[in-house]
Amino acid sequence: MSTKKTIIVVAHPNLKNSKANKGWLDNLSKFDSNIKIHNLYDLYPDYKINVENEQKLLEQYDNIIYQFPIYWFNCPSLLKEWFDKVYTYGWAYGSNGKKLVNKNIGFAVSLGAPINFYQNENSLDKILKPFIASCGFVQANFKGIHAIYDVGVEFNDTSIIVDSSKQYLEFINKM
Amino acid sequence: MSTKKTIIVVAHPNLKNSKANKGWLDNLSKFDSNIKIHNLYDLYPDYKINVENEQKLLEQYDNIIYQFPIYWFNCPSLLKEWFDKVYTYGWAYGSNGKKLVNKNIGFAVSLGAPINFYQNENSLDKILKPFIASCGFVQANFKGIHAIYDVGVEFNDTSIIVDSSKQYLEFINKM
Repeated sequence: MSTKKTIIVVAHPNLKNSKANKGWLDNLSKFDSNIKIHNLYDLYPDYKINVENEQKLLEQYDNIIYQFPIYWFNCPSLLKEWFDKVYTYGWAYGSNGKKLVNKNIGFAVSLGAPINFYQNENSLDKILKPFIASCGFVQANFKGIHAIYDVGVEFNDTSIIVDSSKQYLEFINKM
Repeated sequence: MSTKKTIIVVAHPNLKNSKANKGWLDNLSKFDSNIKIHNLYDLYPDYKINVENEQKLLEQYDNIIYQFPIYWFNCPSLLKEWFDKVYTYGWAYGSNGKKLVNKNIGFAVSLGAPINFYQNENSLDKILKPFIASCGFVQANFKGIHAIYDVGVEFNDTSIIVDSSKQYLEFINKM
């Protein structure tokens, strides 16, 4: 179990019917009940983010993981809205905005296509550039990407999700 | 005036109070009244996209420009929601989804920080990777990026916007 406090900010528009994203969370809860799971689409179906609540919540954690399925090489829209509203001047950046400095930030993402599709020009560190650059801007520590590939509509292999969840936990424990 | 039909899909959460984005559109309308301006935040304040209408609209144009301010190295959330809903399987991709093949797609973006900030690791072709990769996925022709830098809250130089609008029109005419 990690000695650092971890929150997973989850952004999946249809989490209960997802395979990888729901599977990950179900397994993580079994392995380590101390990880806080924060589900944005449950909280903000109308896209009206409670900024103060979100900021106060994040401030309590050492590790922040953004977990989402990658659609069109990018995050689901609610997570982008969340960044635009929560990462405010005077909180996340600016001379008086230091709340994310030295926080550890990681990403856990699911991808519909096989791993071969995400090589070279489409590598994850390139696709996720907006998010990695944002870590730098707020002076957080970018701690890498935990990914699962080839989990499109046809996918249905529980054992792969369990294995991936164990790797996810190792990823968190190293943050 | 371009001989090709052009639509500008605009995504700015506060367009009427914007400087660069509104200035561009005002000037373009003076220079070339034939360019269709399609303002997403006016149409969909509740994020409920009319997918069929959007698809039928796009199909009528040769050139599609996505215009937006870059926030956190990425587009505003409503444009991301729009991509996820409008770029459907069977329309934008898949064996029967060819509606964007060979369309010309360009980007017009405003950036708050000076141009020096967006060099090397933060260059626009890197920041906009999710959008450029999406062009490739739907087999559209990526036609480049028209950008204006250093248009943060303090900016208020109308002559720079007029010059940038003329370059924007040249950008469109070359698409």
